Amino acid sequence: MRKIEEANAETLKRMLAGDPVLVDCIPAHEAIPALKPGMILHAGPPVEWERMCGPMRGAITGIAVYQGWASDLTDAEKKAAGGQFRFEPNHHHGAVGPMTGMTTVSQPLLVVENRAFGNRAYCAINEGLGKVMRFGGNDAEVLGRLAWLRDELGPALGRGLRDMGGIPLKAVIARGLSMGDEMHQRNIACSSLLLRLLAPALARTTGDAKVLERCLDFIGRNDQFFLNVGMPMAKSITDPARGIAGSSIVTAMSRNGTEFGIRVSGTGDRWFTAPVEMPVGLYFPGFGEKDANPDMGDSAIVETVGLGGFAMAAAPAVVGFVGAGPASEAANFTRLMGEIAVGTNPEWTIPSLDYAGVPTGIDIRRVVETQIAPTINTGIAHRKPGVGQVGAGVVKAPLACFENALVAFAETMGVA
Amino acid sequence: MRKIEEANAETLKRMLAGDPVLVDCIPAHEAIPALKPGMILHAGPPVEWERMCGPMRGAITGIAVYQGWASDLTDAEKKAAGGQFRFEPNHHHGAVGPMTGMTTVSQPLLVVENRAFGNRAYCAINEGLGKVMRFGGNDAEVLGRLAWLRDELGPALGRGLRDMGGIPLKAVIARGLSMGDEMHQRNIACSSLLLRLLAPALARTTGDAKVLERCLDFIGRNDQFFLNVGMPMAKSITDPARGIAGSSIVTAMSRNGTEFGIRVSGTGDRWFTAPVEMPVGLYFPGFGEKDANPDMGDSAIVETVGLGGFAMAAAPAVVGFVGAGPASEAANFTRLMGEIAVGTNPEWTIPSLDYAGVPTGIDIRRVVETQIAPTINTGIAHRKPGVGQVGAGVVKAPLACFENALVAFAETMGVA
Repeated sequence: MRKIEEANAETLKRMLAGDPVLVDCIPAHEAIPALKPGMILHAGPPVEWERMCGPMRGAITGIAVYQGWASDLTDAEKKAAGGQFRFEPNHHHGAVGPMTGMTTVSQPLLVVENRAFGNRAYCAINEGLGKVMRFGGNDAEVLGRLAWLRDELGPALGRGLRDMGGIPLKAVIARGLSMGDEMHQRNIACSSLLLRLLAPALARTTGDAKVLERCLDFIGRNDQFFLNVGMPMAKSITDPARGIAGSSIVTAMSRNGTEFGIRVSGTGDRWFTAPVEMPVGLYFPGFGEKDANPDMGDSAIVETVGLGGFAMAAAPAVVGFVGAGPASEAANFTRLMGEIAVGTNPEWTIPSLDYAGVPTGIDIRRVVETQIAPTINTGIAHRKPGVGQVGAGVVKAPLACFENALVAFAETMGVA
Repeated sequence: MRKIEEANAETLKRMLAGDPVLVDCIPAHEAIPALKPGMILHAGPPVEWERMCGPMRGAITGIAVYQGWASDLTDAEKKAAGGQFRFEPNHHHGAVGPMTGMTTVSQPLLVVENRAFGNRAYCAINEGLGKVMRFGGNDAEVLGRLAWLRDELGPALGRGLRDMGGIPLKAVIARGLSMGDEMHQRNIACSSLLLRLLAPALARTTGDAKVLERCLDFIGRNDQFFLNVGMPMAKSITDPARGIAGSSIVTAMSRNGTEFGIRVSGTGDRWFTAPVEMPVGLYFPGFGEKDANPDMGDSAIVETVGLGGFAMAAAPAVVGFVGAGPASEAANFTRLMGEIAVGTNPEWTIPSLDYAGVPTGIDIRRVVETQIAPTINTGIAHRKPGVGQVGAGVVKAPLACFENALVAFAETMGVA
């Protein structure tokens, strides 16, 4: 037990010591040299075409057309089923992506560097709300937007970020927590703060006023723009906490729409999976539970570092948005998550809780013992390909992941 | 009594029906034709040079030099004492200004139009924090910044706002309340949201990239930028509520650093004054109570419409900043202000109170009956001219203003 406490203390220390800085935006093939044409990285633990859910398949076919690897969606589907694409998890390449989480060679990726440890993490640019590829959208509008991100916004962000020397993210998130964001389903504060920091650099480095206007307008209209910054931020600070012998702390939670997977520090890069659950939430007009795809996306990496559902107390307004009860009960979610976390983050605090830090470092032993599953705030995709987002809600990480992980963890500790 | 209730219902109805839109930024002499060279508008009820506090005198001498009406501060002081400038309250000209509240011919003024009633209200551009004229600063750095606001930022804001057709403010404030702003001592959310809305228009209408960069940078570094938008917004929605016979609702609260003044709808434009109180708060390093000037500024107009101290529950982080106790007690301030308000604003709600509206419409009868004084969140100026801001705190409106107003109000109702 002493060994586990010490190992967990080291894991938490590394997570809290992270110094994530948004430093660049570059094409995926430059960020991840192992990423080759025909390869498609996706959210969650490994999954083959046959077991992929509707929106994941929708995104796969869409991204194949966007990349020019298929003439149309039907052709893309045939090629996907015929084994012509190689599927791997984002997490295996230092990347993350919300919902379907498509990452392919020519997409621009935001780069977060953890300056305390020197590692980097990557994420594509957030596309906005509604019919978008991360929710399974794949029509001409969706692909056209991806092309614009590649040709105009991505390069502009890269120029601006390099010119200004990057944006330290810890302070942005600390402010966001005092402004009603939990950084998963509510990112309006951090998105606005980020634009405020970026705008002068974009003005300085974007030669064309029309391009600048389009970039400022696109970022400014997207309340979730920061989600795709917060995710690689979280990935960049959890990665150095991986592989610490004897540590029972979760280093990743992720879903591919079919399975939920977790990784634990002491068991290295192994995934412990279970079928994903269905989010409970609120639906956009015209949609309901029958339309919903089960839980999906790498975005639960933010809960892994104490944000999202763990920081619900900071964001009373998100409680109603995700249909989780009265706004005044936001604090209860954070208190409950405190039961399964080994510590709190003294730099990320919640004013309404008199500046208590967000619960950080999920201990699989506590989850199994208390049967309290991590609460994740999430978007809800339509279960069919090509439709898009239909709502937002709250979902539980399946306890079976933690139970399986605990068995394997016990084996590493020499317990049968 | 029935007549008063009906009159108060009409007053509240007009305040809630306001549709304030930030439409322009223009030179003060265009906004206020009655404003002539040699005239200096100031915060609060009327006050002559002899009774002006230190920072007010500091600002007067500074603005006289800025306008070219004096060769230096000493010359300006001599001229001010010699009666060569004409002093009038901002409120007498449809304007407001935070702290000392200087308004003179060549300063650029933000213009808020209340589209439901057609009236306009004006306020100078916020200068940022620290040594600034609104806190009595008057050196070359302060005057240079004012010149830049006049020559570069003001015209750029005007071009951008006109081009985009203005920014409706009610929705911005509603979002700000869900993002931890109370719109008096905490404006970071609304300042960021405003920049987000403005930036594309500024990019479209500012020809010079260097100018654009400076404007975006200046707005982006100033967490209180929105204060000077929220104030004329509040003025624009209280002005149509003035002069309703039989209404006991406060239409303005304002301080000149010497006296606190209120106006009541049923007693028209008459000021009811009492000596200002000293804020209780927190001081910047190196300063303390002995340095503090008493309460000052037109900014209490935001409390008049239910923001600032009345909306404290929305902004737990401001409670610590103004030294008003534990952040978790923010809701108590809002609940207490509910005791002296005739209604709530259904469009400006506070998530953590399960979307209760901010208390709106201060009834002088309730203030006198309960002896609960309006709570105002405020900045604290150094009592000497030329120093600047030394802290932030909470101050009470003096009960004597309300007692005097009630006597006069009773007379209008035929009660001896």
